[in-house]
Amino acid sequence: MVKVQVYVTLKAGVLDPQGSAITHSLHTMNYNEVKSVQTGKYIELEVEETENLEERVKEMCEKLLSNPVIEDYTYTIGEAVS
Amino acid sequence: MVKVQVYVTLKAGVLDPQGSAITHSLHTMNYNEVKSVQTGKYIELEVEETENLEERVKEMCEKLLSNPVIEDYTYTIGEAVS
Repeated sequence: MVKVQVYVTLKAGVLDPQGSAITHSLHTMNYNEVKSVQTGKYIELEVEETENLEERVKEMCEKLLSNPVIEDYTYTIGEAVS
Repeated sequence: MVKVQVYVTLKAGVLDPQGSAITHSLHTMNYNEVKSVQTGKYIELEVEETENLEERVKEMCEKLLSNPVIEDYTYTIGEAVS
């Protein structure tokens, strides 16, 4: 089994109201050192080793896990876990 | 400015219906090598350098960014960005 970690974030320029809300709340709580917050999704997949794993992960990201119009994704493919 | 990355995931044993839905959809799309999916949140903070930064980040995670009853968090504190 391989552990694949996918991070999906909004593209620059796309409004992130959740991030703004978190920034605002942190300021209210006196964490004024926080200048900006960007939120995203973290998705962890447990995958059986296959050929073209990286290619298939990319496809999954583009077809289902992210919305390529407004979101960017990055992924890491971890070493095999027993 | 320092970039802080926070990953919030559900604790083991907490139901993750979104993860199950993604697994199901991936199988429907013939990605049968995917055995399980766990979803979580990814939060990126831009923070001014302060004393006790790590301690303050932990506090933010526990008080606002995660729900310690059902969620775990990890974070990385990146090197300074100009």
